[in-house]
This record gives sequence, structure tokens and C-alpha cells, in this order.
Amino acid sequence: MKLEKLVGDRFREKPADCIVDSHALMMRGGYIKYVANGIYSSYMPLKRVTRKIEEIIREEMDAIDGQEVQFPVVMPASLWQESGRYESIGKEMVRFHDRSNSPLVLGMTHEEAAVSLVREYGQSYTKYPFMIYQFQTKFRDEARPRAGLIRVREFTMKDAYSFHTNQADLEEYYARCHDAYHRIFFRVGLPDVISVASDSGMMGGSISHEFMLLTPVGEDSIVICKECDYRANMEAHHAGPDMTCDVRNTDLHDSAKVQEGDICPHCKKPALSVSRGIEVGNIFQLGTKYTRSMNMTFTGKNGETQYPVMGCYGIGIGRLAASICEAHHDDHGPIWPLAVAPWQIHLCAVRADAPGVKACADALYGKLQSNGIEVIYDDRPVSTGIMFSDADLIGAPFRAIISPRNIRQNIVEIVSRDKKFSTAVPIETAAEQIRLILTDAQ
Amino acid sequence: MKLEKLVGDRFREKPADCIVDSHALMMRGGYIKYVANGIYSSYMPLKRVTRKIEEIIREEMDAIDGQEVQFPVVMPASLWQESGRYESIGKEMVRFHDRSNSPLVLGMTHEEAAVSLVREYGQSYTKYPFMIYQFQTKFRDEARPRAGLIRVREFTMKDAYSFHTNQADLEEYYARCHDAYHRIFFRVGLPDVISVASDSGMMGGSISHEFMLLTPVGEDSIVICKECDYRANMEAHHAGPDMTCDVRNTDLHDSAKVQEGDICPHCKKPALSVSRGIEVGNIFQLGTKYTRSMNMTFTGKNGETQYPVMGCYGIGIGRLAASICEAHHDDHGPIWPLAVAPWQIHLCAVRADAPGVKACADALYGKLQSNGIEVIYDDRPVSTGIMFSDADLIGAPFRAIISPRNIRQNIVEIVSRDKKFSTAVPIETAAEQIRLILTDAQ
Repeated sequence: MKLEKLVGDRFREKPADCIVDSHALMMRGGYIKYVANGIYSSYMPLKRVTRKIEEIIREEMDAIDGQEVQFPVVMPASLWQESGRYESIGKEMVRFHDRSNSPLVLGMTHEEAAVSLVREYGQSYTKYPFMIYQFQTKFRDEARPRAGLIRVREFTMKDAYSFHTNQADLEEYYARCHDAYHRIFFRVGLPDVISVASDSGMMGGSISHEFMLLTPVGEDSIVICKECDYRANMEAHHAGPDMTCDVRNTDLHDSAKVQEGDICPHCKKPALSVSRGIEVGNIFQLGTKYTRSMNMTFTGKNGETQYPVMGCYGIGIGRLAASICEAHHDDHGPIWPLAVAPWQIHLCAVRADAPGVKACADALYGKLQSNGIEVIYDDRPVSTGIMFSDADLIGAPFRAIISPRNIRQNIVEIVSRDKKFSTAVPIETAAEQIRLILTDAQ
Repeated sequence: MKLEKLVGDRFREKPADCIVDSHALMMRGGYIKYVANGIYSSYMPLKRVTRKIEEIIREEMDAIDGQEVQFPVVMPASLWQESGRYESIGKEMVRFHDRSNSPLVLGMTHEEAAVSLVREYGQSYTKYPFMIYQFQTKFRDEARPRAGLIRVREFTMKDAYSFHTNQADLEEYYARCHDAYHRIFFRVGLPDVISVASDSGMMGGSISHEFMLLTPVGEDSIVICKECDYRANMEAHHAGPDMTCDVRNTDLHDSAKVQEGDICPHCKKPALSVSRGIEVGNIFQLGTKYTRSMNMTFTGKNGETQYPVMGCYGIGIGRLAASICEAHHDDHGPIWPLAVAPWQIHLCAVRADAPGVKACADALYGKLQSNGIEVIYDDRPVSTGIMFSDADLIGAPFRAIISPRNIRQNIVEIVSRDKKFSTAVPIETAAEQIRLILTDAQ
């Protein structure tokens, strides 16, 4: 792809309303465009990132026996009345009526739809366990969208739902999914994501984990004990046994504070601390809440009627992309990990009007393309400063530079976006060298 | 994938409310589940079909320099007020208010969003032409959803928008897209799709083409002249120069009839006939309607301010899947073309409890999987009748059968779903033979 043809503007100035770096860089780099409060359109570079993220998630969901399905965005209110959530969920759920005055809602999560899809299928214990998942648009009418793609109203989510004959089977699967989530975050370039348990146990409550990228710009506060493995989000830490987990991504906005050195509820030592983080995923043991309320049953081995036990597992795609950007950037732009980068290499023809530069760069561009390498090629007649600042904003992990000086020396410079790697290779073998560098980096 | 684990029920009885074959077969085969009027969930087999369709479309859109982007499902009313369509479109557009009482709509098409995305980018003639496209959920509150996925309220659409400095450039690109559409329909297994021009010309109207799969169950009537190349949908035939094309997929429901042998408006011979068809795609020359109303301008070569000229290009993914099923099925199920089949081959272990059958089938299943062949494997202890009728409903283009008799003869039977091809190969080389057969069929 030629950068000259890439739709979207890039600019140097940080937009005034951007507090979080990923928000500013996604605006500056031509990744997103504001449409309305908490609603964005995506340009091609972001779409390429999110498609790669989705493919990684898809592979990991398939690897734990997930089946990709699709639920609708628009659902009849009746489905949500069955579970009781039509009444219990507040203004964040959009409700409207269609032309025949039937009440409909916009899906903000899909437990009801999942139960409805498999209610007839799952009538015998022999069908269990199974897991279904989708990538689908969600709309939540948040009161306070913020920070670009970190907290929006419309977003794409991977949501998965597992069904089991008993709690032990759910727990086993839940552990598999927990591991799959760590693999996903590792593969997209966030190996440091931690899982934070939120065990509200006891009174029929549910077990859940949030996956947190620790960063000062995160909107969630995580209570961490320095002496034991106690970790809880602020909400779970304060809510205790009565906490409900139905609607995910609720946040407490720090109405209650935890002081450094407070007493840990588990080890009883004065060792609590608070870190901030972005919730990049969550997993829940739902129990029989939805199967019971929606009357989904199966016949057990001995003929008895039982309610299946459910788990659910979510990852917001746009928020994950923003989190990767948050974890991997400098002042000049994102530094995309190779696995999710919009392009693998950014080819710069510096002073394309100088003798030999354009011909050499064109030839390398052709070779890279025919080798199946994802290359974005800048042959515009612009200054080196503009060329490199645009490349910084595109954030391809590697850059190949062809300039008049390099031509004289018969080399192509190859540098990594994070500046940790740089080399010069002969022009003749540059395509092959780049292929090897990319293979090494994978 | 083991068929035993496939979520979804299959059944032999035609559902009472299914008039169209593809609807009945998609219900019977566990492809879709009714959620509400004109709203369905998809099970894994359909999701696999639609993902393959989307990938083919993506390749063809990229090949004509398209850039994949994404617009939101939920949009502010203000965007549609700019174009004037907030008022002009009727009840098929869902309107609602958010928690702060701002008016929003559900996207039924995305011309406004497209103009909004590129309005700043496209300020200089040097940026043109460009095309952006997306795959996105649309919601149209149709009065009469019908025929399963043929006419629904919620659906996924590939919609593309091209921008040009002048009409001639649009026309050139429009022709490229017209060709790309024929390639898409060819590749998904519908080589006989015809394009029907709807030229309402003259009074600033727009040129458009509908791509029609001719079939008696189609809901559109196409007027075809037997003496010249006049083809028009019923609406265009009757509407003449004042026809507007803004909202696609409108239909006339045959309020006005054309008789066989009526006079052709072009060649003036009494040679009109009427065929029925499903509209599987459409392309429009929009002119400056949206750029003008939304005040998108560019500076031309000589400094003059001009409105860009637009084209738009749609394909409904679910409707296309249903149309493929409509064109390729028998009484027993779909006969998916290889390029879009949920699985390439269906492996049947007939009487898996008989000596040798299961071990042989398991081994072949493993080999096929490690060769990257998409195989669905039925090793259930069910009758041959159930096994084969399920395979018919899954519709994989090839079937491999391992039975006690085949084991004794040391062969694997391979038959095509359409029964036009059948062979027997030695068990030892079956995996390799299947690979060759699939390669040949591609």
C-alpha cells in the first residue's frame, strides 16, 4: 500500500481534549474519527490492527473448543424480560420500539441471546460441555465515555458463553479460558497483563476475574496486597459478598478510597497498595442465574432435570487495541508489536526525486509485496521530517530507508520503530534480509 | 471438528412457515435460529459460510484499491439531518434518544458516515480517487421481513463508497467495481448472476445496477426484453426519470404489472418478459447528492472549489449466503460450492462400533486435519440414514465414507454431495487422494 493513497489525516499537534496518550495518538495518526460522544469510525490502519487482534482471539477460542456464532445487535425486549434484566438494567441499555410498537433493545451483552440459541439443543447431558462465541457490536449508553477507545458507547466485543452440567466442569473450563486469555494478551504484545480475582463467594455470588493492564492512565483501581496474592478491583474489595457481576465493566469511580498500608482482608497484614489499570478482559462464572431464569434445562444421566451451569468471557477489541498502544508508544506515535501492526514494514523513499532513489525503492516495494510482506510505501515528495513523523504515527515495527546517501553506499537502512535495532543491508538482498528480520522478530 | 460437538439441531421436517427452500434448509440444518421478526442468530456452519464469503469480497474490494474501514451502527441524527434523510426516510429507520436526550439512529446505510469520515481528508484533488468499504451490521425496520435471510431487518452488509473529482472518473471506477462484483458472484458459486441496469438518467437522476440471481422464489421482478439488452427492475421500469435510489432494496411488491409481450421502451418491439430474481448486490452512481448536501468540497487543480462525485456499492452477506443455498441445493440440503462450504469434506464412520471402522476413521480424520483440510467428522453411534441425512444438511461438497464393507475392501469411498462424482481409494492413500480431489475442484 502506498502511504500517499491512505485515507485519513495525520498531524503533529495533540488534540486539546485528549488526556490519554492512546487517544491522542489514534487521533493524530488517522486511526479513528469522532462521530458522536463515545462513538467513533475507524480508518484502515486501526481496522488492520483490530482484524489481527480478532484473528488471534479466534485462534485461541477455537483452541479451547469454541464455536463461532453470531447473535443479533437488536433483540426483543421479551428475551431480557425472561432473565429479569429488562427491568434491572438502567439507562445504559438502549430501549426502543419498532414500527409495530414491539419493544426492542440494543445488545450490551448476550447472555440471554446465548441461552436462547442453545436452549433446545442442550436438552441432554450428552451435549455438554460446549462453548459458543462471537465478535459483535455492543452498545452501552455510558454516562461518561472517555479516553478515546478505552471507554466508548459502541464497541466490538468478543463474548463467549460456556455451558456445563456441573460446577466442577465449569471450573475446569474456566481455568482453560483463563489460560487462553493469558495467551491472547501475550500474543498481542501485553505479556504483563495480570488477572485480578473478584471472589464474592459465599451467598451464591459468582467467581470472576478481570484481566488488567497496569498503567497510570487506567480508570480502574486495583487493590494489591504486597504480602499475599490478594488482588481485587476496588468494587469487589468494597462490595464484598453482595456484589453482582451481571453487567460487566461497571466502575466505581473511586467513591471509596483505599490507603497504602491498609489491612489486607486475606492475610490481615497492613500491606495493601493501589495500582491503576485498564480492564482488557474479564471472565465470569455465572452459575445457573440465566439458565434458571430463562428455564433452560437438561436431562441428566439418571433422568433428572437440571439447570446448566454457565460461564462467560469477554474482550473488548477496540479497548484492547488502545491498551496495546498505551503500553507501546513514544511521544511520536504507537510502536505496534509485530503480531498486530497494521503493516510489518514502512518503506521510505527519502528524496524520491534524487537520482536512483525512486527506482530502487519501487523495486524493493515490488519484491516485498511479492514475498507477501505487509509493506506501506512512502514515495511522496515530502521532507524527511514529515516522512519520518508520519512513519512514527503509523507505527510499523520496522522501517526500511532508501536515500541518496544510501544509494551511493548501495545499502538499505533497516531500523526498528523502537530504535533498539538497526542495520544496513546491500540493496540487492534487502528484500530477503527484511524477510529474515521479520521472521526472527515473530 | 466432530459433528457430535456441533451446537445446533438438525431435523427432517420442513418448518411450516418456510416458503423458500433456503429458509427451510437453514432452519433444518442448524444454520440459523429465529430471534424476532426479521432477526436471526447464526450457528457455526453459517458463520463459517459467511466468513468465507466476506473474505472473497474483501479480496476483490482490496483488488480495486478499496480500504477497509468501519463506521458505527449507532449514529447521531445530526449526520442524517445534514443530508436531509433524517426527515425523508420513513419508519424503516430506527430513531431513538440516548440518556442525555440526544437523537440517534441505527444505520441502515452509511453514505452520511462515509462523507463525514473523509470530509477533511478529501480537501485537495490530489487525494482522489479513493474507495472505502466496511462489513457492518445494518438495521432496517422492514414492514414485511420474509424468506429467512432473504429479507431481514438486521443483516451484515459490505458497503463501499468511492469518491472522485469528476463524473468520468466515477464511471471508470464504477465499471471496475461492476467487474469486481461479477468476479465475487462467480467465486462464491453464482456465475449466472446478471446485472440489471436501472438508468433513470436525464433529470440529474442516477445510474445504478442491481445484480440479480434469477430464481422463481425471488421477490424482485425483472423486466427483460427478448430483442434488445433492456433490463430493468420493475421499480425502475415504471418509475422512469424521477426514480430515486437513495434507500436501496426498496421494492415495489408488483403493484404495477408488466405483461409478456408488452412494448420495450428502448427497442419499441413487443418483446418484454418478466423474470423473478433475488437482488444479491447493487451499485450506484450517487453523483454529488451527499457531498453537496453535507458540504464536502475539494480544491481543484486550478484552485476552484468543487463537490466530489460519489459511488456506492452494496452486498448483503446473509442474503448472498441464502441465495447460494437457493441456487445449490436438493430436497435434502444445501450443496455448498467448495469456496464457501462450511467444511470441505464430511467424514462418515458408518457403524463406528464395527471392528476397525473407528480406528480407521480416527486416523484419516487426524491426517486430514494435519493437512489443513477442513473436515467435519461424524463418528456417532447413529444409523446410516441419520448420518447421511445430517451430512446432506451440512452440505460439504465431498463425503468420505468408512464402513465395515469398505474396511474389508481396504477402501474409502469418496462421493460428491451433488452425486456427480464418486470414487474409491485405498485407505492408506486416502488423505492424499482427498487433498488432490479438493485441489482439482478449486
